Amino acid sequence: MNRRQLLVGFAALSTSAKLIPAIAAPRLPSQISPLSRPDGMDEQSWQWLKKAQALTPALHHHLQPMTGSVTMKANADGRYGYKVQKDLTPQQVAQTVLQSGDSIILDFGNHYTGYLSFDLGWQGKSADAPARLHLTFGEIPDDVAEPLYPYNGWISPSWLPDEVVNVDFLPTQFRVPRRHAFRFVKIEVIATSNNFGILLKQASVDGVSSAGPDSLKPQQYPSAEWERLDAVSMRTLSECMQTTFEDGPRRDQRLWLGDLYLQAMTNHVSFRHHDLVKRCLYLFAALRDPRGYVSACVYEKPVPRIGEAFLLDYALLFGVTLHDYVFTNRDYALLVELFPVAEQQLQLALRQVDSAGLFHLPADIKYFIDWKKELDKTAAMHGVVMFSLSRMSRMARALNQPEKSERWETLRATMADAARQHFWDENQEYFVSGADKQISWASQAWLGLAGIVPAAKAKNALMRVMKEPGAIGPTTPYLYHYMVDALVHNDGVTEAKQLILDYWGEMLNLGADTFWECFNPREPGISPYGGKQINSYCHAWSCTPGYFIRTNFKPTL
Amino acid sequence: MNRRQLLVGFAALSTSAKLIPAIAAPRLPSQISPLSRPDGMDEQSWQWLKKAQALTPALHHHLQPMTGSVTMKANADGRYGYKVQKDLTPQQVAQTVLQSGDSIILDFGNHYTGYLSFDLGWQGKSADAPARLHLTFGEIPDDVAEPLYPYNGWISPSWLPDEVVNVDFLPTQFRVPRRHAFRFVKIEVIATSNNFGILLKQASVDGVSSAGPDSLKPQQYPSAEWERLDAVSMRTLSECMQTTFEDGPRRDQRLWLGDLYLQAMTNHVSFRHHDLVKRCLYLFAALRDPRGYVSACVYEKPVPRIGEAFLLDYALLFGVTLHDYVFTNRDYALLVELFPVAEQQLQLALRQVDSAGLFHLPADIKYFIDWKKELDKTAAMHGVVMFSLSRMSRMARALNQPEKSERWETLRATMADAARQHFWDENQEYFVSGADKQISWASQAWLGLAGIVPAAKAKNALMRVMKEPGAIGPTTPYLYHYMVDALVHNDGVTEAKQLILDYWGEMLNLGADTFWECFNPREPGISPYGGKQINSYCHAWSCTPGYFIRTNFKPTL
Repeated sequence: MNRRQLLVGFAALSTSAKLIPAIAAPRLPSQISPLSRPDGMDEQSWQWLKKAQALTPALHHHLQPMTGSVTMKANADGRYGYKVQKDLTPQQVAQTVLQSGDSIILDFGNHYTGYLSFDLGWQGKSADAPARLHLTFGEIPDDVAEPLYPYNGWISPSWLPDEVVNVDFLPTQFRVPRRHAFRFVKIEVIATSNNFGILLKQASVDGVSSAGPDSLKPQQYPSAEWERLDAVSMRTLSECMQTTFEDGPRRDQRLWLGDLYLQAMTNHVSFRHHDLVKRCLYLFAALRDPRGYVSACVYEKPVPRIGEAFLLDYALLFGVTLHDYVFTNRDYALLVELFPVAEQQLQLALRQVDSAGLFHLPADIKYFIDWKKELDKTAAMHGVVMFSLSRMSRMARALNQPEKSERWETLRATMADAARQHFWDENQEYFVSGADKQISWASQAWLGLAGIVPAAKAKNALMRVMKEPGAIGPTTPYLYHYMVDALVHNDGVTEAKQLILDYWGEMLNLGADTFWECFNPREPGISPYGGKQINSYCHAWSCTPGYFIRTNFKPTL
Repeated sequence: MNRRQLLVGFAALSTSAKLIPAIAAPRLPSQISPLSRPDGMDEQSWQWLKKAQALTPALHHHLQPMTGSVTMKANADGRYGYKVQKDLTPQQVAQTVLQSGDSIILDFGNHYTGYLSFDLGWQGKSADAPARLHLTFGEIPDDVAEPLYPYNGWISPSWLPDEVVNVDFLPTQFRVPRRHAFRFVKIEVIATSNNFGILLKQASVDGVSSAGPDSLKPQQYPSAEWERLDAVSMRTLSECMQTTFEDGPRRDQRLWLGDLYLQAMTNHVSFRHHDLVKRCLYLFAALRDPRGYVSACVYEKPVPRIGEAFLLDYALLFGVTLHDYVFTNRDYALLVELFPVAEQQLQLALRQVDSAGLFHLPADIKYFIDWKKELDKTAAMHGVVMFSLSRMSRMARALNQPEKSERWETLRATMADAARQHFWDENQEYFVSGADKQISWASQAWLGLAGIVPAAKAKNALMRVMKEPGAIGPTTPYLYHYMVDALVHNDGVTEAKQLILDYWGEMLNLGADTFWECFNPREPGISPYGGKQINSYCHAWSCTPGYFIRTNFKPTL
């Protein structure tokens, strides 16, 4: 499907949602970090870095008052999670005196990324001492229903979403200076004096996002569940849209290429904040390593800096994201500028493709695909390279470089042949990977996207693998996205819809306001970090149900 | 001694220190809190409150870099306290990578009241997570050499001098937004990630004080110890001089009348920030209770508010402080304004004096004198009333109200007779108090100040009581001050000097940079609050050695 078809897809879904240009966010010079040219940066990269900074968006603010207090009740029958039960109204909260040892959970009704503030009053004989409060910010009920500590995960506890704050003089307005991502806030009074208790009034969150209005919201949905799936997708995306596309506003707050690809895709059919995509592409392009490779992530603050991780599949998605941006926005100037960067990433990958067109896992380069340790990623990576080649070839054509384009098309065909020979097991009717002929969701997804075997066979493999007891399953919505996309590509729209209902729909059943970084319906509460309290529950790579809904499940490219 | 003599006393001590007018601090309107008239406040009080706010001083800033890091070594031989040992230079500190679990104690070389800031750098693979730090602010080595927790005191732990701070993006400049009082800062790294450690550079304290220059510093001292006693007194006072006279900058940060009296007295011979005294008198006058009584303390922030404590001896010190201010500054306009307030306090006290001139402890009114629970305070309170009467009488004379003046002089004589009969035990040659004829330091001090018995007898009682095993001793430098003053009043200058050397000198021996809220040489480490980590170690009422030094031990009044 080309972009014209995609736009037709939009129009069919949302007849009255006009394709208005995205509202330009006002530029606030104060939000653009002062830059100086990093040591050893070449002139071209420095120009791109300055362009990226000039595209720093202003943030939209939404002041959301608390909706009241809640209590969390563990679900009955051993079902995972908690039920949110309304407790006090905001008026009742404001009249509730909290003494040392007391606690309360405030609810803001939806997920917000921003700054908590409240008026801190007091009642009693005298506010003769500071108030010391422990604040815990919850994206999901678990965060505030269960204690954050002890934390036994293996990534830094400095990311845990809590703060101890001290307020010296009451009454006062208090604003938590750090940005947090939350729907719930548990406030525990560590100490006041015996002479007074605190009163929480006017609690609100100053929510920030660069998303702006959602100009392409469909007028109607097949059902309330689909409407909710779309709404939660969009909330997930818009919460991750800050001065870059963040992977999740709670923890890393970092721009990752794998997430960016999916965010940009969904942004194209919703907020249409194309400048933010452009900014992110410039950031990756400007901050390559000395060999010219783009990193898997970049740090934005305090000043842009290259991330230390390199992932080959993510690097290839640079070109894919550029492709989508260029053809959606007809911004051929950016194509001219950044194509060489995309090509450089492809060249790195092609070093791993032998003369027979078979991809070999590099020993010295990392790749992601999914978190599953046991997963053999050879077949999936083969698919990623083919995914990249098709986009690269189209860009080369647009740049009037037919030799390149043809060379890559030819290579893609060779790789397809190689894949059919090496990865397709005609007996089992599965794509297999590695010496042990491992069967996995990832291999079916990525080679299913490559058009190597007839659609019926590919769809069949995708459907069967999800029930195959010995198959290596997925851990992330990131891989689920490619499963859905592969189904769509292989005449499996109905099945793709069902997969979204089964997977993302189950997060809705568990009360999600935004979609999660990590979810396994069979193991809810699992964490890739050894501690679910450090998981991100508003995670960019989880937002693509909205993309499929709004494109009416038309296949990508 | 009248004020002229006092001024001669200054001149004799510091021949070159010119009696220049205090340098007027610039008024910063932004520092004056916005006021609105409190509900029910009468017009007169409102005018005084506005005058008080208009006198809010600007603060002087002093940027003090750290002097390096230190380690604390427990004193040998079971001696109390710690020895401060230099460890790293600031340059070495800046090169020391601190990982999760590491800690360091920074030294700023003296006591500062202000705002800690530092540049937080990082070293390692990548600063890919926030840094979470636990900061503990120490006025004395114990604060940082021993853990703050568990804290078992009975006043609020919200006053404990520690903070948990989170810094999201490194490198950055970080400023602790709350004011702290400290010489030492222990920085414990709760967590970074495994990929980096922090670097502490440019640590400094932005010290604040309204004191300004000490224009009356003596040119020479009898010995280095006396010079140090004076310097530490002045540091104690200047650290407590903020937008009011605070009792101590660490904990309450509150304006107390008992402290104010001693602060104003010492300020007169040093910083001469007379407007600050005036501001504080206006605050007490404006914020009386409905009966017209001044409270023992007022709260300054967020807006001025009456304290909940009333102490009769403190209330009487309002007039004493007014007296000193008026005659030092020849500000008779303020006398006219505030004399009625002082008189009102005296009237309350005189309700407790019977026709024979004997003071009876009220059942419904509190009084302080000292913290000692067992202390019978009747005799001492009798002395406080007489102390007040002499100043009130002089002010009445200056206001041309001779009847009042004479009436109070007569009453004072009657009270002297009553005291001789009821409190003086000629057999024991002690002032005694209460039905059990209790012997205490407080009774000897306050009635020793009243000139009831010949100086030789009073001095003798003062000297003997300090060695009397059964006598009720003092717990606070506040009472020690009156012991010194009483010795000075009774021809005991040599003995007064020795007492200062024995008491305040012992704090110096223990390494004090400022004098403490509470100190008992026989029980170092004692706390009136059940936990020494909540004690204040820079406390206004401890600053008067500097007063006696600079007045050459001339008796007050």
